Amino acid sequence: MAAACIFCKIIKGEIPSMKLFESDKTLAFLDINPLSYGHSLIIPKHHGAKLTDIPDDSLLEILQVTKKLAAASGVENYNILQNNGRAAHQEVDHVHFHMIPKPNQEEGLGISWPMKKGDTDTLKKLQEELRSKM
Amino acid sequence: MAAACIFCKIIKGEIPSMKLFESDKTLAFLDINPLSYGHSLIIPKHHGAKLTDIPDDSLLEILQVTKKLAAASGVENYNILQNNGRAAHQEVDHVHFHMIPKPNQEEGLGISWPMKKGDTDTLKKLQEELRSKM
Ligand SMILES: [Zn+2]
Ligand SMILES: [Zn+2]
Repeated sequence: MAAACIFCKIIKGEIPSMKLFESDKTLAFLDINPLSYGHSLIIPKHHGAKLTDIPDDSLLEILQVTKKLAAASGVENYNILQNNGRAAHQEVDHVHFHMIPKPNQEEGLGISWPMKKGDTDTLKKLQEELRSKM
Repeated sequence: MAAACIFCKIIKGEIPSMKLFESDKTLAFLDINPLSYGHSLIIPKHHGAKLTDIPDDSLLEILQVTKKLAAASGVENYNILQNNGRAAHQEVDHVHFHMIPKPNQEEGLGISWPMKKGDTDTLKKLQEELRSKM
């Protein structure tokens, strides 16, 4: 727990939230500034800023709860998003997964995709490097 | 497995890929049209188009592998993204999680965030509805 963290305060009940699901390790609640109707957040109770800061056992349940929420919402099109770092659009430094329904072009997550054709030699080197570190 | 699915073909080895990690239930490989250096995909071997189509036990390992990959890449800023449905930018109908480094403004995932102030009464009703369905 981090004293100044708004999501740790929500977990402790010091700040109210619209809870959807709670267990030992996981909390889900509505985003109060939604991108679309049904936009919700799923967080590990373990405090950590980035995905790499969260122990494996606090990640186990996240996607099951996210899936349940997507099913309960009955949405057809939706994005699951978890941002790490300011440059990647993270605003609260406690890992959180967004479940964001995409009902139409105007609402929900806006995505741009600056795709490039990868260079095979560069990709092969990267593959070897990553495999050696995994 | 779905005969026409490109990711099922990658799993079966019928199409080559730059594999980074493989287990019974999970496969990770490099995206060959990356948004940034290090862009990789993590998929359950179980075929299913959307998150809600994947059994829980095929989801258990996904975030641990994604975390390992982010750590191996040594990236500071990155997005984890899983798109469901054409309107939500899904292009291959086999669930896949993107790990997309965000090294600078030009490369990586582009995000726009059309946030609205939520209406409290609407949110409360939604909360009750979702809780009853979870
Ligand atoms: Zn926290
Ligand atoms: Zn498939």
